[in-house]
Amino acid sequence: MRAAIAGASGYAGGELLRLLLSHPGIEIGALTAASSAGTALGAHQPHLAPLAGRILLETSAETLGGHDLVFLALPHGQSAAVAEQLGDGTLVVDCGADFRLADPAAWEHFYGGAHAGTWPYGLPELPGRREELRATRRIAVPGCYPTAVTLAMFPAFAAGLVEPDVVVVAASGTSGAGRAPKPNLLGSEVMGSASAYGVGGVHRHTPEMEQNLSPLAGEPVTVSFTPVLAPMSRGILATCTAPARPGLTQAVLREAYEVATKDEPFLRLLPEGQWPATSMTLGANTAVLQVVLDERAGRVVAVVAIDNLTKGTAGGAIQSANLALGLPEELGLPLNGVAP
Amino acid sequence: MRAAIAGASGYAGGELLRLLLSHPGIEIGALTAASSAGTALGAHQPHLAPLAGRILLETSAETLGGHDLVFLALPHGQSAAVAEQLGDGTLVVDCGADFRLADPAAWEHFYGGAHAGTWPYGLPELPGRREELRATRRIAVPGCYPTAVTLAMFPAFAAGLVEPDVVVVAASGTSGAGRAPKPNLLGSEVMGSASAYGVGGVHRHTPEMEQNLSPLAGEPVTVSFTPVLAPMSRGILATCTAPARPGLTQAVLREAYEVATKDEPFLRLLPEGQWPATSMTLGANTAVLQVVLDERAGRVVAVVAIDNLTKGTAGGAIQSANLALGLPEELGLPLNGVAP
Amino acid sequence: MRAAIAGASGYAGGELLRLLLSHPGIEIGALTAASSAGTALGAHQPHLAPLAGRILLETSAETLGGHDLVFLALPHGQSAAVAEQLGDGTLVVDCGADFRLADPAAWEHFYGGAHAGTWPYGLPELPGRREELRATRRIAVPGCYPTAVTLAMFPAFAAGLVEPDVVVVAASGTSGAGRAPKPNLLGSEVMGSASAYGVGGVHRHTPEMEQNLSPLAGEPVTVSFTPVLAPMSRGILATCTAPARPGLTQAVLREAYEVATKDEPFLRLLPEGQWPATSMTLGANTAVLQVVLDERAGRVVAVVAIDNLTKGTAGGAIQSANLALGLPEELGLPLNGVAP
Amino acid sequence: MRAAIAGASGYAGGELLRLLLSHPGIEIGALTAASSAGTALGAHQPHLAPLAGRILLETSAETLGGHDLVFLALPHGQSAAVAEQLGDGTLVVDCGADFRLADPAAWEHFYGGAHAGTWPYGLPELPGRREELRATRRIAVPGCYPTAVTLAMFPAFAAGLVEPDVVVVAASGTSGAGRAPKPNLLGSEVMGSASAYGVGGVHRHTPEMEQNLSPLAGEPVTVSFTPVLAPMSRGILATCTAPARPGLTQAVLREAYEVATKDEPFLRLLPEGQWPATSMTLGANTAVLQVVLDERAGRVVAVVAIDNLTKGTAGGAIQSANLALGLPEELGLPLNGVAP
Repeated sequence: MRAAIAGASGYAGGELLRLLLSHPGIEIGALTAASSAGTALGAHQPHLAPLAGRILLETSAETLGGHDLVFLALPHGQSAAVAEQLGDGTLVVDCGADFRLADPAAWEHFYGGAHAGTWPYGLPELPGRREELRATRRIAVPGCYPTAVTLAMFPAFAAGLVEPDVVVVAASGTSGAGRAPKPNLLGSEVMGSASAYGVGGVHRHTPEMEQNLSPLAGEPVTVSFTPVLAPMSRGILATCTAPARPGLTQAVLREAYEVATKDEPFLRLLPEGQWPATSMTLGANTAVLQVVLDERAGRVVAVVAIDNLTKGTAGGAIQSANLALGLPEELGLPLNGVAP
Repeated sequence: MRAAIAGASGYAGGELLRLLLSHPGIEIGALTAASSAGTALGAHQPHLAPLAGRILLETSAETLGGHDLVFLALPHGQSAAVAEQLGDGTLVVDCGADFRLADPAAWEHFYGGAHAGTWPYGLPELPGRREELRATRRIAVPGCYPTAVTLAMFPAFAAGLVEPDVVVVAASGTSGAGRAPKPNLLGSEVMGSASAYGVGGVHRHTPEMEQNLSPLAGEPVTVSFTPVLAPMSRGILATCTAPARPGLTQAVLREAYEVATKDEPFLRLLPEGQWPATSMTLGANTAVLQVVLDERAGRVVAVVAIDNLTKGTAGGAIQSANLALGLPEELGLPLNGVAP
Repeated sequence: MRAAIAGASGYAGGELLRLLLSHPGIEIGALTAASSAGTALGAHQPHLAPLAGRILLETSAETLGGHDLVFLALPHGQSAAVAEQLGDGTLVVDCGADFRLADPAAWEHFYGGAHAGTWPYGLPELPGRREELRATRRIAVPGCYPTAVTLAMFPAFAAGLVEPDVVVVAASGTSGAGRAPKPNLLGSEVMGSASAYGVGGVHRHTPEMEQNLSPLAGEPVTVSFTPVLAPMSRGILATCTAPARPGLTQAVLREAYEVATKDEPFLRLLPEGQWPATSMTLGANTAVLQVVLDERAGRVVAVVAIDNLTKGTAGGAIQSANLALGLPEELGLPLNGVAP
Repeated sequence: MRAAIAGASGYAGGELLRLLLSHPGIEIGALTAASSAGTALGAHQPHLAPLAGRILLETSAETLGGHDLVFLALPHGQSAAVAEQLGDGTLVVDCGADFRLADPAAWEHFYGGAHAGTWPYGLPELPGRREELRATRRIAVPGCYPTAVTLAMFPAFAAGLVEPDVVVVAASGTSGAGRAPKPNLLGSEVMGSASAYGVGGVHRHTPEMEQNLSPLAGEPVTVSFTPVLAPMSRGILATCTAPARPGLTQAVLREAYEVATKDEPFLRLLPEGQWPATSMTLGANTAVLQVVLDERAGRVVAVVAIDNLTKGTAGGAIQSANLALGLPEELGLPLNGVAP
């Protein structure tokens, strides 16, 4: 299989390449970019030694055509036009938001503009999704925050253990904000500081979380989501809490999470008493989980750590692509983090 | 006025000294320590140039006696024994937890052992506290997390705008965990990583938050509190949310926070649209606030940033001491953070 | 005394304001900026609470005129035009490079373009400079690296202890690179990483170091300078080494540094065995020094830590301005760092 | 091939395990520890998901026996006693210092105590070493700093381009200092700060650098070495400079480095104008190099970045072990860093 990567000079593109370099079933084909077209990859991704001399091409139907699969790591709103030009037989995996939301009204409210459509959602751990992903040529890779939050809460909702009123506060590394230089993302600004942004129900990942959890709950789930920028390059640590249903016990809660995670290659429920840290997942496709019943407050509290660029973007994309290509789901995806 | 500091080799002690060095009304007297007694302060607090040659004394009634005020920056459980030996005329300001909680049952549940008692609570911004602090010789300095959370939520509860069911997720710098070397606090472990700890209603600061907010609510307030260790030395960024009372509007909410903060020298409500970052408060006694109504989720979300060592410990201690000493409340306390 | 600050939205401007806010002899007047003119300072310097509402003006003779002193914190090359429009009676303190170098050829080689001239050099610790600064209305503030390196090596050269062949490797925080957003300064790039830049004798601060040390050596001093970008916002840690003159002993070396520093309010020679860390100087106008004779290698090794924005820029500027204004040299300048 | 790891709970042990988990030719056998024996690996190395349940054994001849190879990641001074108990047919790879130095006097001066002996030195890139490593059952893994410095300077010495008087200043991440908790290694101390230590010819890695470079120079090489602790977990960025021999040109210098590196799988000479950053090598066994002639100062300046735990310890150990086992030298060793 040969893969092209559109947007190879950005963070998502770089992570796709890092993972594909050790993927035994996918060969790296054309690398494309926008303003960086014509320059060597080594100027943008100097950590990818074996690809340093590769020249970035323009993103176009010509450069992306002729591959078995194409990963799109483009700014929101640009994927539809590119995807249209690629044949139905090509597997297209979109790391952007364009095809994630099913509800056009939600799209308009949070993103604005016309809704491009909906593609099969690349979160294989969600009940029922694997079958869909095995049969598709189009995949919408989930957002990084929705990946974290959905993996933390789906066992509780699937087992009917919590009320549909979720509060999420998630600390993210700065790579989640991308590579376009902005003053607030300068190292001088972010080092030594934590800050909130997109507060009060305005972050675009909010409806995606609700879309994932509501079907499991059997009723509309509301998410109050506050993202926090933390002084680290990678990683999301999401704290998710919802009111416990009456009578819930810690034993029942734990059992639900054990059942939901035990056959999942990339979900890791920690032993009781140990809590997730993002360093456990740096560079890995693993989501590390823990959950507890706060009896005083009557709440379930689930905490999840992922690497936003790996399981949260590029690793998740390859995991779903593996399914669509008929390859083993785990192929080429690291289970271990790089620590300390 | 002459102040002794017990526990001068730790982080709280160091911050007390840093602030007192530029305090025009308080002179620095004896500095005491436990295992570091007999060594020079410069070996422990090398940033405090003018005090580098001062020798640390043993913590005892003799060394602490004869001062107008004594700051205790000791491990939990050690303050009562020391305070007993100091005369009633000496102002004793305890930066530890020993005298914060009014409810012996809460003390036993969260701290274990016998309850030492309750001293006037050093959070002048809480309605009614200033008068009490002006008349006392004993002050219990609030915990760093309760300082942040109480300042973020008291305007909402005082105005009756929210339900008494609060969720707090707060990211803290590592200095909040103190200076005793533990493997999980090594730089190698914390840099580049965010981690949760004390999850599920077990953190000792939880009952203190409830104690502060319940009287304002006129009913018991429950707090679900999750602390997060963030890769920074200083700072707390707390996201606090509670269900909005029916009919609440953004205008009413904003007005309540403007009224509650406008005469407070150390509370700073940001303009709408700007959100707190801990770097705004590094080294300052300021709490920076923002609040918004999330209409989709029906929740008030308040975010606050403080420096855990300044407003959260040493600065708050001096602020309350200023009141008890009849000095201007703001004396010697920085309003500006050090940034970037 | 009333001071205007040109370039108030940048890092040097922000640090000038932070320090002036607690300066008892200088009042803050007009604040000017380029593209940010018309916006509130609080949008750019949110840590400066008391000035948050101040509106930035255009940088011009009108806005800067009528002040006793004007600090210029402008991009290189812009100071001359502004300074010309300010009267000879106004104290003008230029934090940029325009007036630092005496040798037009060096200016052309390292900066390019026409040499603007030379102003008295604002490093009062250099022998003979204080008198000059007390009598001037124009001050060229030294570069941050030259400040560090000159303070580390002047005692050795003044006492004739080393050969004029200096090697310097200096780690700097990212604020030294300014606030203009560039991809390589993004938090995602700099956190967790150290990188070299400007290697091989091309960094513009190199001739300034040589200019400072050569007169003390009585012969031309050559500096091999390598700057390193370190993952921190502030601070410079410079390691400076030169061959020891024959027969030099540790005792003689130590004595020379003790003599050179003992009456200097902002130079702090650590006790033998303790080495500088930039955290000792965060936010302080202090330079922390240590020196040792490496007998095996026959070299003097001096290490210095400063805060690049304080002693390295804004604090040094105010220190020199104090002299020119006839104020006590230390007025309004912090001696203590903020740590941890 | 089955490998035991002694010292599996430390940083070097953890990195060995991380790399071995994806090594196709070596299976992970017994994991041993000292005070952590009896506990699960997951409590110490939570990033190594597949090994989380493995129980740490006591370090002894029994637990380490019966393996094809044994990696020792023990505190200095403990390797000899363990190695003696392992048969001559077992490949023993010592990540500690015990067998690195050939000169007993240097050992005594820098480490103290009796010299344990000398084993073949595990730096395959050094001329002549590969043959030796292919034929040995005992390997002394180089120190992290000597790895970096030797790789940066061997091309210059091998080609006779520089004088034997080297100055090195190297910034290291904190993992190089190990996992034993010490106050100066706390996150609160190291974040946001750079500090020097072991200055003046006293760092134990100094004689190892000289031992490596002197044979290439054909005369004794002196190294003035200053290590700097930088606020990052991993990585070494070493700046190495020596006087250029008369007549040296940039073209000749560049050519020497191209020749020396072009067939080396783990040495990567960057294109001219691009400089190493440690992030390029995070988790990789690659050393990234750049070199330039500073004509003004008459010096060669070489800069190298490595990951101190990978190429600097565990990766280097496996690279040499591959040779001794007759496996391809690159087997199981990542070429790419994890970035950003």
